[in-house]
This record gives sequence, structure tokens and C-alpha cells, in this order.
Amino acid sequence: MDALLASAEAAADLAGAVIRPLFRSALLVEAKGDASPVTEADRGAERAIRDHIARHHPDHGVIGEEYGNDRPDAEWVWVLDPIDGTRAFVTGRPLFGTLIALLHRGRPVLGIIDQPATGERWIGVEGRRTVFRGPFGDPSGGTVGCRPCPEIGAAELASTSPDIFPPGQDAGFLALRRSVRRVSWGGDCYIYGLLALGLIDVVVDATMKPWDWAALVPVVEGAGGRVTDHAGRVLTLESAGDVMAVGDPALLPACAALLSV
Amino acid sequence: MDALLASAEAAADLAGAVIRPLFRSALLVEAKGDASPVTEADRGAERAIRDHIARHHPDHGVIGEEYGNDRPDAEWVWVLDPIDGTRAFVTGRPLFGTLIALLHRGRPVLGIIDQPATGERWIGVEGRRTVFRGPFGDPSGGTVGCRPCPEIGAAELASTSPDIFPPGQDAGFLALRRSVRRVSWGGDCYIYGLLALGLIDVVVDATMKPWDWAALVPVVEGAGGRVTDHAGRVLTLESAGDVMAVGDPALLPACAALLSV
Repeated sequence: MDALLASAEAAADLAGAVIRPLFRSALLVEAKGDASPVTEADRGAERAIRDHIARHHPDHGVIGEEYGNDRPDAEWVWVLDPIDGTRAFVTGRPLFGTLIALLHRGRPVLGIIDQPATGERWIGVEGRRTVFRGPFGDPSGGTVGCRPCPEIGAAELASTSPDIFPPGQDAGFLALRRSVRRVSWGGDCYIYGLLALGLIDVVVDATMKPWDWAALVPVVEGAGGRVTDHAGRVLTLESAGDVMAVGDPALLPACAALLSV
Repeated sequence: MDALLASAEAAADLAGAVIRPLFRSALLVEAKGDASPVTEADRGAERAIRDHIARHHPDHGVIGEEYGNDRPDAEWVWVLDPIDGTRAFVTGRPLFGTLIALLHRGRPVLGIIDQPATGERWIGVEGRRTVFRGPFGDPSGGTVGCRPCPEIGAAELASTSPDIFPPGQDAGFLALRRSVRRVSWGGDCYIYGLLALGLIDVVVDATMKPWDWAALVPVVEGAGGRVTDHAGRVLTLESAGDVMAVGDPALLPACAALLSV
């Protein structure tokens, strides 16, 4: 696993080198919301990662947001989202991330949340304590470990946007928003990283693809939290795309009950 | 003005030195949403700035979020928000900022948006082009200048939260959200900085105090944009607290019309 981890980190480095020059570039300003500059960064980064995998792990499969599936039934399959948070990227917020996961027989056993703009990186490996490296704060920008929060009324909820649910399907989300202590917005994969640092208690997402959530699972679970669907079930490649994370597993039943309203 | 600007930058440096060690500290994790660690950072930073002003500008007034008014009728008055975006700070998002403005006879003539965690700084002086310094991207993390966007339907709207309006008073905001091309969430003062880099076209806020908006005015206007109330009027210390910024002044009438729905 250490060799695979080193390879995953090298892939994240390659992606970041493609992405950083395009972040806040003149192209983005001129595009005025047109998707092409972010698509260029997304595709370039995914090509860099796929080339790396093809060279170093020729028998592994790949599932990526931009270039589809390559042997998705292999024993080992990499799952890639070069830019998670395209809206953040397009508007210049540095919290978008690169997500790299490795599945073994369909189960995420390795996950990296890399932040090309801020220089932070979360590294999760099944059965190990999550590792965080980052430039912020004192002394290391944070300490890995979800915090206890058994009561939903004391929980800090975060989500990328109030509009993640299709119209008319957000009754459960509204019920959860009314039940927690506070809600804050924005962050994509970054807020799962903050949950792994004990700063957020619940994150809710909807309509996610495997490349949006696979890397989050080892990161959050290696910090003591859980990543599940909205009913509290383990995520699989067949899951519908509803995702939640809790820092304290004791929150799972209450969150699942509220989200099913 | 150059001496005042150097002094304002020194004050921002002092505030950042107080704030950085508390960002993502163990205190914040343990507090679980309790306000005390952010209050400690807020107060310590405001004391550092007030001490600096008292030493270097003994005849100036000060209005600050934490320690109130000191000679608010002086010819020159500093307006301080040591941590704009306390929710971002508490949840570990690095986009909170320190806001320092200098009013001359009630008009903001100097404004600094400083980001202690990311190392970015926007500097606005009335009648001058805004200056941006930052570590991100290629080559400088962005170029100052709001972008043209005369059509509301093409605009990128950003706001800190969908819950900024009191219940039942958000009809105009909902109308604006439906009229723009896209909406993204989170960022506090940071999104005004991104508007000054031409990456966002409209920002809307409500229930703001003078320390929330005074520093934004010279930054945004020195980049070609406008900061007004929701009717498109110049902000004054007597304004009600509704604030919007547009990168393209041509957007003002449409935004004001929608927000008055």
C-alpha cells in the first residue's frame, strides 16, 4: 500500500501542476462563466493522472469524470475528479480540490483530497489514521480527528449550496437545516476535509458521482467519521448519489431520519 | 495618503499576527460552535489595530465591531472588522478576512481586505487603481479589474449564504437569484475581492454594519465596480445595511429593480 500511496501522491502533484496556472487566469475572466477554461484544466489534469497510472499500474482500471471508464471491473480501479468544485474554480475561490481514490474490488481503500491552490492535502488509507498536510495556522493548520457531537442540535452543518437538491426534493434537507445549531455554505470536497479536522460535524451532498465521493471515504473514516448515503448505508458504485458525512457516528441515525422527511 | 496607507498595511499585519495562531486551533475544535475562540481572535486583533492607531494617529477616530466608537465624528475615522466571516473562521475555511477602512469626513477613502490565512491582500485608495497581492495562480493570483457584464442574465452572482435576509424578506433576492446565469455561496469579504479581479459580477449582502462594508468600497470602486445599497445608492454611515456590489456599473439598475421586488 505504501507504493500505491506514493504513486497517488505523485499523481496529485502532476494534476496540481496542470491546474495551478489556469486558476484565476485571464482566460477565466474572459470566459464569463463559460465552462471552457475549467474544462481545459479538468481534462489536462485527468490526462496527466491517467498517463501516470498507465505507466506505473498498467493492469489497473480507471474511472474518471472527463474521460470515462477504462476497465472498471479490474481488481484495482482509480477513481478521479481532477477539479471537484468547478463553480469555486470558475469564481476564483481556492477551495476546489483534486480527488484521487483507489478502489480494491469496488471498495475505496485510498483517498486523496488535494488542494492545488492552498497547498493542503488530506491522505486517507483504509485501516490507518488520516494524514493532513497544510500551510495554515498553528502549528500545522489543523489536527486530524473528527470531534464528538452526539446531539444534532449542537452540530455544525456545512454544504456547498442550498440548491444541491432537485426542486421539490429538499424537504429532508430543510428539516436537517432547521435541526442543527448552524449552517454554512461553500466548499465542495474541502468541507469533508474540515470535518476530518474536527471543525464541522455534518456535510450533506446530493447527485454525486463515484468520483465525487470515493476519495472522501478513507479520509473521513480514517479520522473517525463516516461517509454514507442519506439513509446511513455504505456507499457503493451502485449508490444513487446522495451522500452525507458525519464526524461523530452517533449522529447517523438522527441525520438519516431527518433526511428521509 | 501614502503614509496613511503604509500605516493601514502595518495595522493589517499586526491583526494577522494575532489571528493566524488561533485559526484552526484546538480551541476551535473543542468549542464546537461556541463563539469564544473567534471572539478572542477578534478582540485581540482589534486591540492590536487600535493600539497602533492610538500611537500613530492620536487625533483620528475609531469605529470597531468589538470595542465600539471612539470619536466617530473626527475628520479621519478608522473602521475595523478584525474577522469578517466568523462562521468561515469557526469552520476552518480560510476565506475570512480582516477589514480596515479609513473614512475622511464620513467617506471611505482607503480600504484593505486582508486574508490572514491565504496571504492575499486587496488595497483600495480613492482615485487610484486597486492593488492586489497574493500567492495563488499564474503569475500573481489574479489581475485587478472588474469585467464587463452588462446583461443580468450573463452574471455570476455570489453571496455568503441564502439565509442573509430575515425570514419573509428575501423575495427580491430570490428574484435576482432566478435572473442571473449562476449563483455560488460562501466567502464574505473575499467574494468582493474576487469581483475586483473580474471573476464574479454581483455580490449581495444584507444587515451589514459600516465595518462590514466600508473597506470594500475603495477596493471595488478602484477596480471599476460599484458598492451601493440595494437601491443603487451610495452607502453612508446612516445606510440601513443592505449592500450590493456590481463589477459592471451597467448592472446597477437591473439589480436594484430585482432586489426591490
